[in-house]
Amino acid sequence: MSLNRFEAFSDGVFAIAVTLLVLEIKAPNLSQATSSEAITKLWQVFPHILSYSTSFIVIGVLWLNHQTLFHFLKRVDRTVLVINLLLLMCVAFIPYPTALLGEFGSSLPVVVFYGLSLALTGFVYNLLWFYVVHRYILTEGLIHPKATRQATLWSLSYPMSYLIAVGLAFVNLNLSLVLYVLIPLFYLLPGIIDRQLIEKLEEPSKARL
Amino acid sequence: MSLNRFEAFSDGVFAIAVTLLVLEIKAPNLSQATSSEAITKLWQVFPHILSYSTSFIVIGVLWLNHQTLFHFLKRVDRTVLVINLLLLMCVAFIPYPTALLGEFGSSLPVVVFYGLSLALTGFVYNLLWFYVVHRYILTEGLIHPKATRQATLWSLSYPMSYLIAVGLAFVNLNLSLVLYVLIPLFYLLPGIIDRQLIEKLEEPSKARL
Amino acid sequence: MSLNRFEAFSDGVFAIAVTLLVLEIKAPNLSQATSSEAITKLWQVFPHILSYSTSFIVIGVLWLNHQTLFHFLKRVDRTVLVINLLLLMCVAFIPYPTALLGEFGSSLPVVVFYGLSLALTGFVYNLLWFYVVHRYILTEGLIHPKATRQATLWSLSYPMSYLIAVGLAFVNLNLSLVLYVLIPLFYLLPGIIDRQLIEKLEEPSKARL
Amino acid sequence: MSLNRFEAFSDGVFAIAVTLLVLEIKAPNLSQATSSEAITKLWQVFPHILSYSTSFIVIGVLWLNHQTLFHFLKRVDRTVLVINLLLLMCVAFIPYPTALLGEFGSSLPVVVFYGLSLALTGFVYNLLWFYVVHRYILTEGLIHPKATRQATLWSLSYPMSYLIAVGLAFVNLNLSLVLYVLIPLFYLLPGIIDRQLIEKLEEPSKARL
Repeated sequence: MSLNRFEAFSDGVFAIAVTLLVLEIKAPNLSQATSSEAITKLWQVFPHILSYSTSFIVIGVLWLNHQTLFHFLKRVDRTVLVINLLLLMCVAFIPYPTALLGEFGSSLPVVVFYGLSLALTGFVYNLLWFYVVHRYILTEGLIHPKATRQATLWSLSYPMSYLIAVGLAFVNLNLSLVLYVLIPLFYLLPGIIDRQLIEKLEEPSKARL
Repeated sequence: MSLNRFEAFSDGVFAIAVTLLVLEIKAPNLSQATSSEAITKLWQVFPHILSYSTSFIVIGVLWLNHQTLFHFLKRVDRTVLVINLLLLMCVAFIPYPTALLGEFGSSLPVVVFYGLSLALTGFVYNLLWFYVVHRYILTEGLIHPKATRQATLWSLSYPMSYLIAVGLAFVNLNLSLVLYVLIPLFYLLPGIIDRQLIEKLEEPSKARL
Repeated sequence: MSLNRFEAFSDGVFAIAVTLLVLEIKAPNLSQATSSEAITKLWQVFPHILSYSTSFIVIGVLWLNHQTLFHFLKRVDRTVLVINLLLLMCVAFIPYPTALLGEFGSSLPVVVFYGLSLALTGFVYNLLWFYVVHRYILTEGLIHPKATRQATLWSLSYPMSYLIAVGLAFVNLNLSLVLYVLIPLFYLLPGIIDRQLIEKLEEPSKARL
Repeated sequence: MSLNRFEAFSDGVFAIAVTLLVLEIKAPNLSQATSSEAITKLWQVFPHILSYSTSFIVIGVLWLNHQTLFHFLKRVDRTVLVINLLLLMCVAFIPYPTALLGEFGSSLPVVVFYGLSLALTGFVYNLLWFYVVHRYILTEGLIHPKATRQATLWSLSYPMSYLIAVGLAFVNLNLSLVLYVLIPLFYLLPGIIDRQLIEKLEEPSKARL
């Protein structure tokens, strides 16, 4: 099993999923509209553009982490294949809840559905991470166990934050939507703890290169 | 004819076909729906998500086998090109019967159409496998003829199991649908015989690397 | 300008265009249909599947020729870039006339539009071929001028045959449609003259490898 | 962070965005149309084809510049990652304003929206260019500071020309549309100053190869 073709296939699914998001933004009907009506109708597209941008960054962040993870893989075993296929299935599904959120963002079930989809994706990513940690990173001593534990907690905090956002939806829908926008931005721009982890994580991969 | 570009093109078609599946899941109209109506309508999307997941794994399994097969190719001749193009045509078509099954899963002709599409895809894959076995594997002694024969039977059992599922649709539609879900899972998680075959198949390719 | 990224980008466009074809096959409405009605409606999808298959092979053949052509390129100059972008623009457009032909195959203007689109694509390919022949192949003596001339005629015969099919549409629509199916198959399965050309063409590229 | 996978992912998004443009061209309904009615309706698709071609070249030009820029990158840092993700988000969005322009090209807000989308994309590209210039090109002395300044002005002129086209839309809509067609063609076919810049820019990258 060639690691290169496996990475290329995964990258392909990430790149296609992220680009398909735009197809879910429906064009308003402006055929008989005056300029001011057209502006109003175009302005109503804004929630779609917001959910497009948010999911774009979500998939981008997942791709970045996927790539970091694969630095530790030296070969692709059957278990990695199966979990990765499951992860890609979740990633390729994201355009669907994104379209729903863009169109029916004021509907509680839709907001919950979006959050649960992303939480599930995060948990499947964690499954892949756990497997790689226990099968490759710890057994081959690629990183210090303490750094691994911190990275695992960090990784788990991602789907957990979506579950919190889902819970908050029952209290205040807008609070939940704000969290959906902020969560991927937070995981895109690493904090102090994250920087340290990244340094530690990157050292062995640099050594490998 | 560069083997690399040929693999990249094939991987591209597999990755795009698998990601396009999501576009066939139609969004329900929730514009005037109450929360409980929205939940009901979202729940009705479940057959779509099931057919999405099933076809995702179908294409994933085909891609895995395609990749294994290409380990044995040292160059791309015209016959491989033509059969492979035929195979990609079948793979890229899968989103269509998947959409039909998701929307009209209780219609006998649709269930039959889905099964026949996947059986045809499987047979075209077998055609490619037969050609590679007789043109490259056996003549160059890459694997023992007995292992090749077992692998051929295994490979043939895949489209045959879809034909059985199609036949069962005339007896009981649900039985057929359950089989559609199980078949790709079965070929994803290799049994005892398959493991042995994989070991034998992988040995020469490892030697090549 | 890296030849690798340029090839990868071109391959990507070919692979995506060929896979997007399936999205143009519309699903019939079978929600209230009996089994026999569903069979009738599914049977009416056949022209779509035929135009899908035909255009799939068209793009496949173009990709194969594109790949052969690029064996002769050692670097990407601005002219190649511009003509290639024009070619990709034509290739990426093919799903549109394909969708029209699948749905309105009995309309003369649609049949003419399909043929003209493919003829135009063929002429742009020829433009690229002429440039590569005069800038790289002849000046660097990669192939014998006589073989180059034969290959040029062969290449020109491709868009010409589409123009003939377009002309025949005014006499008999079905004749034209049959030609549309046969032309890509003919250029996929090389005749005696083509085989000789391929041999001659492939020699220097093999030497390069 | 592997530069190769990063380039492959970016190339993928560019290639997919450019190929998805065709999906935004809606098929006219010709089911009951006579030949002359069909010709009229097909002719009305022309604005769609024009906006398709224009945006195709826009994305092509952006890809070409993106590629040149990446010649100067030796590694991918977090800042490049984030700006690049923002750029890809703008590029993947282009099919949406393109669809609007094709369908409602006589609506002032739509014409303005198209121009602003492309201007924004251009500014994000400039952000990436500024960062790469100050972090890599100038500090490592890859190009002469004077040539860098000229290239920066050239790069800034691209989004500025879209802002001018947007401004002209309020005076004369057609003038604005003509500019939209001409701008990407102008940046595709380099003028005298651009040629000199390209030469200067390409020298160090050639040296690197």
